[in-house]
Amino acid sequence: MTDSVKFFLPEEKMPKAWYNLAADLPVPLPPPLHPATGQPLGPDDLAPIFPQAVIAQEMSTERWIDIPAPVQDVYRLWRPAPLIRARRLERALGTPARIYFKYEGVSPAGSHKPNTAVPQAFYNKQEGVKRLSTETGAGQWGSSLAFAGSLFGLEVEVFMVKISYNQKPYRRALMETYGARCIASPSTLTASGRAILDRDPHSNGSLGIAISEAVEVAATRDDTKYALGSVLNHVCLHQTVIGEEAMLQMEMAGDSPDVIVACTGGGSNFAGLAFPYIRENLKGAKTRIVAVEPASCPTLTKGKYAYDFGDTGHLTPLVKMHTLGSTFMPPGSHSGGLRYHGMAPMVSHVKELGLCEATSYAQTECFQAAVTFARAEGIIPAPESSHAVKGAIVEALRCKAEGKAEAILFNLSGHGHFDMQAYTDYFAGNLMDQPYDERELEAALSTLPQVG
Amino acid sequence: MTDSVKFFLPEEKMPKAWYNLAADLPVPLPPPLHPATGQPLGPDDLAPIFPQAVIAQEMSTERWIDIPAPVQDVYRLWRPAPLIRARRLERALGTPARIYFKYEGVSPAGSHKPNTAVPQAFYNKQEGVKRLSTETGAGQWGSSLAFAGSLFGLEVEVFMVKISYNQKPYRRALMETYGARCIASPSTLTASGRAILDRDPHSNGSLGIAISEAVEVAATRDDTKYALGSVLNHVCLHQTVIGEEAMLQMEMAGDSPDVIVACTGGGSNFAGLAFPYIRENLKGAKTRIVAVEPASCPTLTKGKYAYDFGDTGHLTPLVKMHTLGSTFMPPGSHSGGLRYHGMAPMVSHVKELGLCEATSYAQTECFQAAVTFARAEGIIPAPESSHAVKGAIVEALRCKAEGKAEAILFNLSGHGHFDMQAYTDYFAGNLMDQPYDERELEAALSTLPQVG
Repeated sequence: MTDSVKFFLPEEKMPKAWYNLAADLPVPLPPPLHPATGQPLGPDDLAPIFPQAVIAQEMSTERWIDIPAPVQDVYRLWRPAPLIRARRLERALGTPARIYFKYEGVSPAGSHKPNTAVPQAFYNKQEGVKRLSTETGAGQWGSSLAFAGSLFGLEVEVFMVKISYNQKPYRRALMETYGARCIASPSTLTASGRAILDRDPHSNGSLGIAISEAVEVAATRDDTKYALGSVLNHVCLHQTVIGEEAMLQMEMAGDSPDVIVACTGGGSNFAGLAFPYIRENLKGAKTRIVAVEPASCPTLTKGKYAYDFGDTGHLTPLVKMHTLGSTFMPPGSHSGGLRYHGMAPMVSHVKELGLCEATSYAQTECFQAAVTFARAEGIIPAPESSHAVKGAIVEALRCKAEGKAEAILFNLSGHGHFDMQAYTDYFAGNLMDQPYDERELEAALSTLPQVG
Repeated sequence: MTDSVKFFLPEEKMPKAWYNLAADLPVPLPPPLHPATGQPLGPDDLAPIFPQAVIAQEMSTERWIDIPAPVQDVYRLWRPAPLIRARRLERALGTPARIYFKYEGVSPAGSHKPNTAVPQAFYNKQEGVKRLSTETGAGQWGSSLAFAGSLFGLEVEVFMVKISYNQKPYRRALMETYGARCIASPSTLTASGRAILDRDPHSNGSLGIAISEAVEVAATRDDTKYALGSVLNHVCLHQTVIGEEAMLQMEMAGDSPDVIVACTGGGSNFAGLAFPYIRENLKGAKTRIVAVEPASCPTLTKGKYAYDFGDTGHLTPLVKMHTLGSTFMPPGSHSGGLRYHGMAPMVSHVKELGLCEATSYAQTECFQAAVTFARAEGIIPAPESSHAVKGAIVEALRCKAEGKAEAILFNLSGHGHFDMQAYTDYFAGNLMDQPYDERELEAALSTLPQVG
């Protein structure tokens, strides 16, 4: 082990291929189903909304998929992302544990999301697409796709959940700086948006609604495709650069993690760090892998593993995943990126197979952890990432109680520079730990489609 | 030359000493004068507001001053900062020039300011100080000192110019996350603040007023010292880690700059990058060195080189510098960090000796440059740093016109994540290029103290 704090891989050691966990799963992933027929989906069913290269990756069981050179070129603007030893946090906690974090906030958009936004923009451009449509909640994904679109000369239209659109003007400004168009959702531009507005003209929107609008735009315009920032297999695939880099950097540090922690909303930053380590576990390694989700939207810990829609308008395929029901409306929180009723099918599958653990924490205890971290290490975590910080601190304090000098590695998936209102609310004592409504959850789960 | 985009120095190559240009100046710097007596200042005059170690550095003519190990430890949280080749910007401009930038936005507070905040906090802590007072305009300096204070267990009180306090709640939230207290200036906590409020209860404040308040607090409380984020010699000294690292990184790139560009407000980020290169120029190298300032506050290009006060309340020593007069009120702009009537005496001296050039640009052309940069390289420049971007682009286009393949190195002193309102205003066409008032400047210059 060295005295160093930061571990930077040289650019030439940046992974040249993404890792596809589908190749190594002991039980294959249940297939996505067509929403109308209930039959397994073919590539043609996805062609209206995704480019061929992305569809091929979505369905691939190849172990390694080459990262195209132009994507590597863009990755090099910020990748390899640093691995950092949180020595000051260790001292602040008085733990014998060694705490490392992979810091994805160094990307231009401030989170791990560009890892998949960039290849998605590249493949679309390559297939002649002119415009990408997408949705965004808190804005991390929308600004990442806006950034990627600007580099490849694609127009980008972002349907932003209306409450975030109004609360986060700086996220909008970021997307516009990259040249994207940002639309408050529900909007009058789509049939799905108009249907919602007819019922509730003052709707604040939701991620499920915004997905419906973005998918509709892509499905009905020839020059436009859709891009999704989480959940799907190809998104998890692209994020594995995180874990592949982390493994090489842990070697540079002369160490190896006993526990890995990441937060889960749609599951992609978790997948990115965890899947390469799960590969090693399947070969005999014994790294504990912990997913942390918000107590107010506890998909993995309280959801049902079943086929469900990804959106509110029921335009998406049915996928087998942990779900709270597509009609479930999680209580408001500052972690917009974790407020999703479903979970990546691949992450859900991994959880079902016992290849990872899951736990949940309330919002205020996560902010408390984030402030402890910020005062020790300087970096302000995104509210979503604060769940991983909390999970890592819980593990570090367990090590302290048990007198164990374990190595903990967590994914700091983004910074909170655009979320400072959340910190203001936390310090003012205005943050609520609003529990979800048990009866609403029961009702949402009772409406799951009867398939699979 | 290599194909790489980013050049990361290994931690062990981080400079172990700051470079003091005072050791190599062909003509010594005119001394600071006591405001009451007009006589050269002694160390005792500064003792009420600064710790001894800082006073010694302020007056030192030693060439190299060791960076204390605890300061290096903190620097390692983000230093060495990357040097990045802006290949995409080069292509976007169609220039044969090679454009490099040193990126200081990777620090926790998002700018170069922690380079001096950290040693200042360290020396104060070492000498038993309990609390630091300071002022901040846009908030870059205040959040940097808040960060540094949190690491060394010092209380930090920041007098924030009232208009920024109200316009930039997220900067305030950042300071509070690091545990600092943020006070709108002018305040009723100080005699200087009360005097301003008596005359104008609705005063929006200014940097000069906030400095008076912070200095007064330090001078009147035994356990409190003052910290300044720019202008003074010791601040320029601490910033030289930027240039020393950049030199090693340009070597890694197999290249050497023909032109260096940095923005100037108080002068410290410019000094940080430029002074080590000026040392080499004094030994025979021929790097052009360009300071870029806002046209609305053109200290180096339109100011008078004369003794003047650093603050509005005339509590500070008199220093010889380029000044627009301590009563000059620059028009409003989004580059709060460049809205200062004076300039670092060392930078002014260097300009007088012909060791650097100076130029100025209007706000909107700087934002235009920043957007071009953001869409090519992904990083959103701080409004202050956009002046350096503009300066570098002007040089790159000159190279294109002249068919010269020069190497340009500029300092990207910070990111603009807390300044997105400025970008929103720019896109909405609401940015004004408000010229300064010629008669006001004349009046301010006519009131310069008659000394020196």
